[in-house]
Order: sequence, then structure tokens, then C-alpha cells
Amino acid sequence: MITHTKAIYPASFPLNLIDQFNALLIFTKKAKTMIKANNPSLKSWIEVEDNSDFPIQNLPFGIFSVNNNEKRVGVALGNKVIDLAKLHEFGYLDGLGFEQSDFVSDHLNDMMLKGKQGTRDLRNRLSDLFESGNDTLQNHSDHQAVAIHNISSVTMHLPIKVGDYTDFYSSEQHAFNVGCLFRDPENALMPNWKHIPVGYHGRSSSIIASGQAIHRPKGQMKPPTADVPVFGPSRLLDFELETVFFTYEGKPLGDSISTAEADDFIFGMALFNDWSARDIQGWEYVPLGPFLGKNFASSVSPWIVTLDALEPFRIPGPNQDNPKILPYLEYEGDKHIDINLSVIIQPENGDENVVGTSNFKYMYWNMNQQLAHHSVNGCNIKCGDAMGSGTISGPDEGQYGSMLETSWKGTKPFKMSDGSERKFINDNDTVIMRGHCSKNGVRIGFGEVSTKVLPAK
Amino acid sequence: MITHTKAIYPASFPLNLIDQFNALLIFTKKAKTMIKANNPSLKSWIEVEDNSDFPIQNLPFGIFSVNNNEKRVGVALGNKVIDLAKLHEFGYLDGLGFEQSDFVSDHLNDMMLKGKQGTRDLRNRLSDLFESGNDTLQNHSDHQAVAIHNISSVTMHLPIKVGDYTDFYSSEQHAFNVGCLFRDPENALMPNWKHIPVGYHGRSSSIIASGQAIHRPKGQMKPPTADVPVFGPSRLLDFELETVFFTYEGKPLGDSISTAEADDFIFGMALFNDWSARDIQGWEYVPLGPFLGKNFASSVSPWIVTLDALEPFRIPGPNQDNPKILPYLEYEGDKHIDINLSVIIQPENGDENVVGTSNFKYMYWNMNQQLAHHSVNGCNIKCGDAMGSGTISGPDEGQYGSMLETSWKGTKPFKMSDGSERKFINDNDTVIMRGHCSKNGVRIGFGEVSTKVLPAK
Repeated sequence: MITHTKAIYPASFPLNLIDQFNALLIFTKKAKTMIKANNPSLKSWIEVEDNSDFPIQNLPFGIFSVNNNEKRVGVALGNKVIDLAKLHEFGYLDGLGFEQSDFVSDHLNDMMLKGKQGTRDLRNRLSDLFESGNDTLQNHSDHQAVAIHNISSVTMHLPIKVGDYTDFYSSEQHAFNVGCLFRDPENALMPNWKHIPVGYHGRSSSIIASGQAIHRPKGQMKPPTADVPVFGPSRLLDFELETVFFTYEGKPLGDSISTAEADDFIFGMALFNDWSARDIQGWEYVPLGPFLGKNFASSVSPWIVTLDALEPFRIPGPNQDNPKILPYLEYEGDKHIDINLSVIIQPENGDENVVGTSNFKYMYWNMNQQLAHHSVNGCNIKCGDAMGSGTISGPDEGQYGSMLETSWKGTKPFKMSDGSERKFINDNDTVIMRGHCSKNGVRIGFGEVSTKVLPAK
Repeated sequence: MITHTKAIYPASFPLNLIDQFNALLIFTKKAKTMIKANNPSLKSWIEVEDNSDFPIQNLPFGIFSVNNNEKRVGVALGNKVIDLAKLHEFGYLDGLGFEQSDFVSDHLNDMMLKGKQGTRDLRNRLSDLFESGNDTLQNHSDHQAVAIHNISSVTMHLPIKVGDYTDFYSSEQHAFNVGCLFRDPENALMPNWKHIPVGYHGRSSSIIASGQAIHRPKGQMKPPTADVPVFGPSRLLDFELETVFFTYEGKPLGDSISTAEADDFIFGMALFNDWSARDIQGWEYVPLGPFLGKNFASSVSPWIVTLDALEPFRIPGPNQDNPKILPYLEYEGDKHIDINLSVIIQPENGDENVVGTSNFKYMYWNMNQQLAHHSVNGCNIKCGDAMGSGTISGPDEGQYGSMLETSWKGTKPFKMSDGSERKFINDNDTVIMRGHCSKNGVRIGFGEVSTKVLPAK
């Protein structure tokens, strides 16, 4: 077993050489891993439709149950869900260091405590096991009968037990649009925006699974024409089209994670609808930031797509020389990712209306920069922390990630296919977000996050 | 066993009468409880010095260990720590519904899951057991030998596994001072301040136990004279003198907790030093609030004083008619509490310097209002959530809860007993906070929270 810790070298070994050797080892190992599980030519012996979000190159992780039985870790492949607890029980995951309790669990956190290498090895093993031509499991129809479920017959749950949740504000077009709407188009971006991946702490307890309906929140707000604040159901309920990444266990309090180290602390990504009540938020947020305007709900998609699976879709980010960013935020290599995103409003018993298409590539600050910034003061990151991207808006109309922007603060209502209009979200609307990467004939999808809005209680 | 759930009545029973009967039962039970455990004339057979923070009327809960053995739930009494796991093992806590694993634990959360009535009954049982004249345990020197430790021989730990942490901003004098320092003395309070218990989400992962040293945080800041931001150790490191309360499990997402119900969801209080790097905070906080200027550490005292033990020290709060608050924030009865607070700077190998004395009674918004506001939009509260008061400042100089205020942004350095000055906190200073209530000859103390600041890493 090759290891890249320094402990195996004598203390007198020249440090530069150690570093170079380590870098080479890491590179070799990583490169080998990438080729193995992400190879575009891989085929699975489980049939996968061409437009599936879940080909063998994806293998996202989630928490599922069947018939209200205990929750387990599952992996999506085509229209099947693989029960990792059963695979482990039958010995297919032997030698990887996992225990049965890592897979019979309400959340992925125990599995994630094995760290990057542990979950990477697990994904590689699954890739081997389901690769066309590998008959280890394929010959065991008895095992398949209990370990492989139709995706339509399982219930998906919130995949992660979230410790702390942080939301960033890293899409330039979104920050610009908000600046135009609430401040001055000439000085739309705040002075700190291009120096800092601005972020704030959100509420973990109200992060919910896709499919769980929410009630329109009530709260205190002060309409522009009112002398005093009023209390009632939010009138300006909005979605925010975001992605979220989940972390492995980080370093102890007081230590930092560099942009170069950040990949090793990111498990994977999901779609994220960071619900916002614009009228509650507008009255409360000065000077300490959003609170009740946000913390009534944030919805997350059920499948966590690993960062490994997303590596083939890396792309360069924007120039950050004007103004020049501080050294601790600099990074090497392509750290942005090309992920197509869309957001849909579906009225009750109505058709889907695409109200925005965007892309994760529109981020000014990438996840490595966000994590490096978050920990540069010594703040400790824990296994299962959630970090939202902030609303992701593209440069053009039709590419905005919130109704606030799409309806330009209500001045340009969106025309729905049924003839109705939307400035914000109506009662009984369902908001759906989808996302996928596509390259070299491989589609890595996220599935969807879907949430219905019920009337205020 | 008297219970006040409605389930014991036939469905046809008139609801008004049920409600009235329930209210009477609750009142009777509560009144009985108060008299029982809080009676000023109670004495313990364990000797308690007159100035002790921990007389039999207090009985605060914490997590301790001896000689690096497993962590357990303990209760402070005089200069002793009572091992509840041992008491439970020996049968002294029989019939209360607790399990051994509730007391052999890294945190109080499992015990707290029994709710208000469960922990109230537990405190009453302990009060009985240690009341002068009760020889049940007093006659068992063998049990005492393993269940009662000298407080100087145990190590105290972080008492609560914090889910979400919220910090409020509820002291009027503090908000006024900050408004004067950073904005306009004529309009020091923001327009929303007297309508909303303003709050924001903080970082749970970096909440640490008293006694754990911190490193001065590094970060990005922009000095007033600089053209571009710089990176380095914070130069304006500050404490915030706060209290914190910890919650029982709340209601499901979508439901609210009223001011009248709030007491039933509050387990107890502790002292809280919400560390702040003013220079990092100043550059980052617009528009989404404090982030890295706060999330490097918040220190909490080891003993949680129950809300029950604090009941005798309730006092009226300020008039809230100008402006008049919204109905959901109105409350009945005395909901403020008279708790003396002090904050001390102790240089390395130097004397303690009291830099501020304040009182929890200076809060404009009480905990009931904070909790009602926090949940009015349906945000769900979980067992072990932490809610900070915000910096508590009194009306006079010498009563301020931060160096920002005490040194008036560095313009009035504090003169220390060794001849040095402090505008903010120096490396190797230890900051100590203490608190206690006092009435009718009973002193209910919080102990202290103490944190040393090490140089930046």
C-alpha cells in the first residue's frame, strides 16, 4: 500500500524531494483513479438509458428506504438503486474498511468519515462490480434480488446530517443584479465583493429533503408605503437556484485548509433551493444579515454526486486580477465546473414552466476558494457541513436564479403557459431544480430537488 | 402520577373546562416545584460555603471526567461534583425514566431529550437527596466515595452538543453604542431594532469549552487608510460579554413557539464569550452579516444553570410601547432576569482587571421573545440549540460588554493595574467572565468562562 504521508521518511530526508515525491505519488494515484471510474467508454451490465442522470460514471450516494423499513446508503445506477448495506453484508465491499453501520444509517456521514480515499475506493469498487463483463455479482441473482431496487419503488431521504450550514454569494451576475435592484446600478457590487467570497451562516435544522412540502412562512415585514411593520404571510416568497457541497471532516480548530487542499475535503455536490421570503428579509437584514427570511427551509436533492465524478467537467474560472485577489485565495488548475442548471415552476395540476436556465460555471469564486476563505481564520470544518453556492445567475435574462431577478423585483412578471403570471411563488406551486454535466457522450446528472409550497398555516 | 395531557379525558369533555383544569394543574405543579427546589431555607448535608456559586438551590448540570476516563453528567454542589451516572447505577434516580446512557455521555443532550418535566423532576430528586436530614445517600459512604468528587479534581468539558447556534443583539445600550461608533449618534438604533429581536446565525463547530485557549485569528481586513485589503493577524481582537440559553427539542418545522410556551423549551443558561475580530468583521459584514470575524471561536462556561433555578430572580422588562411591539412578541409576567455579570482581563502572570460589570436585566428583548421570534416563521428548534443574548451593556461607562465600547473604538484605552493599557485584547491575555444572581440570602452562580489568547499561528 503506497502512502503519501511524510512519516515513512527519515527525518533527515531533504524536504523538497519529499514534497516532490509526494506530489508525484498523489498525482499518479489520482490520475489512475480518474481514468478508472470516470472512463467514458465504461458500460454497466445494468441497463442505463442514454439520457439517464446516473450512468456508471456517476454513482452518486443517497439515503433510501423501502416500505418504511430502516434507512440505508444507496447508489443510483440507471433506474436502479443499489443497497450498499446488502452489498457489504454479502462481502462485495470487503477490504475497504467499512462497517455495516456505515451503510445502515439515516445519513451518509458515517461513511464519509472514512475520508476522500475511503469513499473514492468505494466508488471504484462499485464501478468494477457493475462494469460490463464483471460477473461477480451479475451471476448472483439471489443477491441482486435483495440488493437492487427499482428507483421508483424506494423513498429517498435527506442524505446528510448537516452540522453547520454556510451560504455563499459567489455568482457575480446575481450580486450585480441584487445591487442594481436594491442599491445603485453604477455601484452594484459592494467594495468587498471581488476581494472576499462573501458568505454567512444559515440554519441547519430546516434543511429538508426533496419532496417535503413547505408552508408559506409568516413574519414581520415593512412594506415600502407602511409607517410601521406588519405581521402576516410572506407575499414575496422566492426560490434561490443553488448548488451545495458537503465536506469531509476537516482540520482542528485553529488550522486552515488551502485552496490546494480543498478538493480533499469536499465529498460531493447536490442541487439546493435556498428558499427566501424577500419581504421578511428586506426588513430584518440590516445590519446582521438574513435570518427569518431564509431559515424556514432549504431543500436539497437526494443524490450526492461525488467531486470525483465531476472532475472531467472542470473548466477555467474568470480572471481575478482586477482587482487582484490576495494570495490565500489564489489557486492552480481548473477549479470551476460546467454544470447545466434549470429551475421550473409547476402550478398545481399544471405544466412545468422553465423560468430560468443557468450554469455553475458562472461562479466568480470556486469551492476551493470558498473553503480556503472559510477556514483561513482557523474556523473548523466538520464532516457533513453544507456550503451553498449562493444564487447562480448567468449574464442574460432567462438565466437568472431567483424570481427577484427574473421578475426584476416584480416589474416584469413571468408569463406562464397557462396564461397566468408569476412575480414570485404562489401557494400550491411546486418549484423544481435540475442539473447535469455533459461531455464526450457522458451525462452526469443530479436528478432533481422538488418542493411544493402550501398556504401559510 | 398527575399528568396534564389531554389524552386522559374523554373526547366529549368540554374543552374550556379541560383547558382550565390543565392550567390549574400546571400552575399547581409548577408552584410546588418552585417552592420545593428553590426554597431559600433549604440546606444541604454537603457543606456549602456562603459565597459559593453552587448552593442546593442551584444544582447546575455539566459534563465532567476524572483522570481522562469517560465523560459523564455531573451536578455541582458547593465544591463537589455529583456523578449522576453513579447515582443512577445505584438506584437513586429510579422511577424518573432516565437510562444509564443519558448520564454516561459526552453531552447533556440525551438527558435534555426528556424535556422540561423530566429534567425538573431530576433536579427535584437531587434536591431531596442532598437536603439536610435526608440520610438515604448520606448513610452510604461507599456510594459517596465513588459518586462525589472534589470539583478541583475533575475536568469540565463543553456541556452541550450544539446543533444550530443563533446570536441575538438584544441589549439596547450595546446596539446604541455600536450605532454611535459606526454610524450616527442621532440615529444610532436601526429602524427595525425596537420592532425585531434582531439575530443572525453563528457557527456551532467553533463553540468551545472554558479553559480551551484560542489562537488570534488571521484574516482579510481593510484598514481605513488602506486602498486595498490586507491579510494578517487581527489587530482588533475583542470579547463579547453574553449569556447563552440552550433549548429542549422544539416543534416540527412549520410550527411556532409562543412567548407563553417559550419557558417550556428553555433548559438553562450559561456564560458566553462570543469572540470577535472587529477588523475582519468590519470589512466583511456588508451586506450578509458577520462571518469570519466571529466564527473562529465562542467560549461557554461549563455549568448550565437551569431556568427553574433562575425563576426567583425574574424581574420586569422595559416598556415596549414606543414603538409598540407586534402581538406575537407580547408576553405576560416577569420574563427578564437579574443576573450580575462581569468581565475581566488577566495578563500573563498578572492580576485580574475588571474591565466591565453589567447585568442580564439590561436586555430589551427577553429570551421568550427571542424564541417566539425565531420560530414565528416555522423555523424548527432542536434539542441543544444555542441562543446567545448578544453583547450585554449597561447604561454607564464601566458597564460595557466589549472592548470596542469600553475603549470607545480605541480612543479611550483602559488602564490596567500593571500600568499597561488595553484598547483590545493582547496576545497571552486571559479573558474571564463571571455571573451570579443574589436574593433573600441565596446566591445562584454560573462559575466562569475563561479563555487565553495565544499568538496567531
